[in-house]
Amino acid sequence: MLGNFSYCNATKLYFGQDSLNYLGEELKKYGKNVQLIYGGGSIKKNGIFDAVVDILKKNGKNIIEDGGVMPNPTVEKLYEGVKIARENNVDLLLAVGGGSCCDYAKAVSVSIHCDDDPWQKYFVRFEEPTCKIVPVGCVLTMVGTGSEMNGGSVITNHKEKLKVGHAFGEDAMPKFSILNPTFTYSLPERQMVSGIYDIFSHICEQYFSGNDDNTSDYIAEALMKSLIHSSLIAKRNPQNYEARSNIMWTATWALNTLIAKGKTTDWMVHMLGQAVGAYTDATHGMTLAAVSLPYYRHIMPYGLHKFVRFAKEVWGVNPDGKTDKAIADEGLLKLENWMNSLGLVLRISELGATEDMIEGIADATFILDGGYKVLSKDEVIQILKESM
Amino acid sequence: MLGNFSYCNATKLYFGQDSLNYLGEELKKYGKNVQLIYGGGSIKKNGIFDAVVDILKKNGKNIIEDGGVMPNPTVEKLYEGVKIARENNVDLLLAVGGGSCCDYAKAVSVSIHCDDDPWQKYFVRFEEPTCKIVPVGCVLTMVGTGSEMNGGSVITNHKEKLKVGHAFGEDAMPKFSILNPTFTYSLPERQMVSGIYDIFSHICEQYFSGNDDNTSDYIAEALMKSLIHSSLIAKRNPQNYEARSNIMWTATWALNTLIAKGKTTDWMVHMLGQAVGAYTDATHGMTLAAVSLPYYRHIMPYGLHKFVRFAKEVWGVNPDGKTDKAIADEGLLKLENWMNSLGLVLRISELGATEDMIEGIADATFILDGGYKVLSKDEVIQILKESM
Repeated sequence: MLGNFSYCNATKLYFGQDSLNYLGEELKKYGKNVQLIYGGGSIKKNGIFDAVVDILKKNGKNIIEDGGVMPNPTVEKLYEGVKIARENNVDLLLAVGGGSCCDYAKAVSVSIHCDDDPWQKYFVRFEEPTCKIVPVGCVLTMVGTGSEMNGGSVITNHKEKLKVGHAFGEDAMPKFSILNPTFTYSLPERQMVSGIYDIFSHICEQYFSGNDDNTSDYIAEALMKSLIHSSLIAKRNPQNYEARSNIMWTATWALNTLIAKGKTTDWMVHMLGQAVGAYTDATHGMTLAAVSLPYYRHIMPYGLHKFVRFAKEVWGVNPDGKTDKAIADEGLLKLENWMNSLGLVLRISELGATEDMIEGIADATFILDGGYKVLSKDEVIQILKESM
Repeated sequence: MLGNFSYCNATKLYFGQDSLNYLGEELKKYGKNVQLIYGGGSIKKNGIFDAVVDILKKNGKNIIEDGGVMPNPTVEKLYEGVKIARENNVDLLLAVGGGSCCDYAKAVSVSIHCDDDPWQKYFVRFEEPTCKIVPVGCVLTMVGTGSEMNGGSVITNHKEKLKVGHAFGEDAMPKFSILNPTFTYSLPERQMVSGIYDIFSHICEQYFSGNDDNTSDYIAEALMKSLIHSSLIAKRNPQNYEARSNIMWTATWALNTLIAKGKTTDWMVHMLGQAVGAYTDATHGMTLAAVSLPYYRHIMPYGLHKFVRFAKEVWGVNPDGKTDKAIADEGLLKLENWMNSLGLVLRISELGATEDMIEGIADATFILDGGYKVLSKDEVIQILKESM
């Protein structure tokens, strides 16, 4: 562990098949007006919406519905959510859905009492909230983003072709999250595997950086190994509770700040993927999958020792008699095989990206400097072309 | 992950060489009267005491000194601490020391406003606090117990020859803990390695249980691997910051409830070790070390698959052409070699235990049922004899 850091994550998690039973207990801590945030309406079909509404009513809450949160929540939707919250003087934002709903709820929560324009303040100038933050709770129905136990929020601005994430501090983290693995059973396979790769990518972004010996990297390897193991079981049998529950728990711990503690982090796959997403509106996890292998093959020479370790520790590559490069290559090949066996999209062209978009996507890619290589724009373009 | 559980741990951690700089910021959140808890006075020699007192004074606090906390805090000391706290109407209990000071502070914190006898209520009847809990903060100077980020507290009753732990809930966890790895540099080697084994044992207690596939076990393996790696570096060079910081961080995450989530746990090494401790007053980590190998060799046949996994994943045992028992044996042999290279005590006779104590130690051993084998009293006696 290098450097100085602080850690605090007070989100209360209720995990398991009976976890929704604890929603009522949590609701008692907050006022009457609850903004009920959800997405496209699938939760109305699978009974989760009715179950939540029932608990809200039993606890005497006024329900202010705020549905239609899109997979990539837009800045226009954010303004709408803030307006709803202000008009109804809401006491709690309850997100029932996946990371999109939870991200959106957090963005609204820090904007309700903010006099400034939230897009400008949080997603352009990256300032911290200075106003009162309305509490957020979450009932998770899709796994991947880790939004249920962190301060992260990603908002898309289609006019400016930008998809930008802000990691808010501990005060903006959900006060509670309800994690019921069975709520994720009805998700289509494409969304399940997309979420699985999102989790994997979160871990990689924090793992592929730094030259020190760091407990965080060992924990990252553990999460990757558990995720890989359970993902293959869930692919064959989506209703395997053990596998789905391990995936859900791994997702939460992959991105609640723990495995980034005491180390530098990369996040360039997300920068590339989010730029692709801003142009194509493609599923987040798929954009990450499609740029990952070209990106990692590109940076491998600059962080070879970590790619060797990744191959040995995560993929069980036998290093005997092999060069470091051969070991590292074998690790990335095993990663590619796993991605193929999950059925992930490995080309951005299949996600709607066209040759003429590449220059624009490269311009929309934020260049970060925490990884093994600070990319030039030419390198970004090269990686995007190799991702086509 | 099996079953239902909740997770909440709101302790704020400040980690690193400059972490004491944040004490002042935390102190501002609490009232004027601070009970300053410490042990035998070593912190008065290494300058930590003066540094803390200086920060307390700068923040206008009344300091109520409560020193002399012994390695195994006694029930008499607990009564004394409660009396001091009541007489001085304390607003914060600040433990500066190792797990003993922090355990003691937590026991005091739940007893100040408790009308009942705290030994009877918490350590005999294992009831939860129903009174107001006075906040606890911690400046850690010794690593091992994980007390800095959990609700655990172990109190010894010499008259009744009992050393009993109670894991209080999230409300009794420290509000903040300051973790500066350099504060552990001056610790004698015997205490350092004793703490290292305490950490390792905490992980094993949560690992050697259950037959499911569980993310928690993968994280446990990661913590063990990081700890083993760093322990050997710290043994050679106690002032290696990287190693000492990884050990410190591993200790915290080994026992803050995370790696027990969704699974059963064992804790019999602690039950045996604590009973030995109640009879000998020996250092906690050494009592655990001295009973571990006989205990694990005894239960290995009942949880063979986990011991095979332990050998392969934690110790890198090559399984090719070997029986499961041979693989598991090799894992325990590697554990024994590591314990020897740290210089741990592997016999309770070297800790002051005598043949005529064995019956009494066995009687003082709580039998728990979460591990691979529920021990009979005869088995406890057999393990203790093999530990002599």
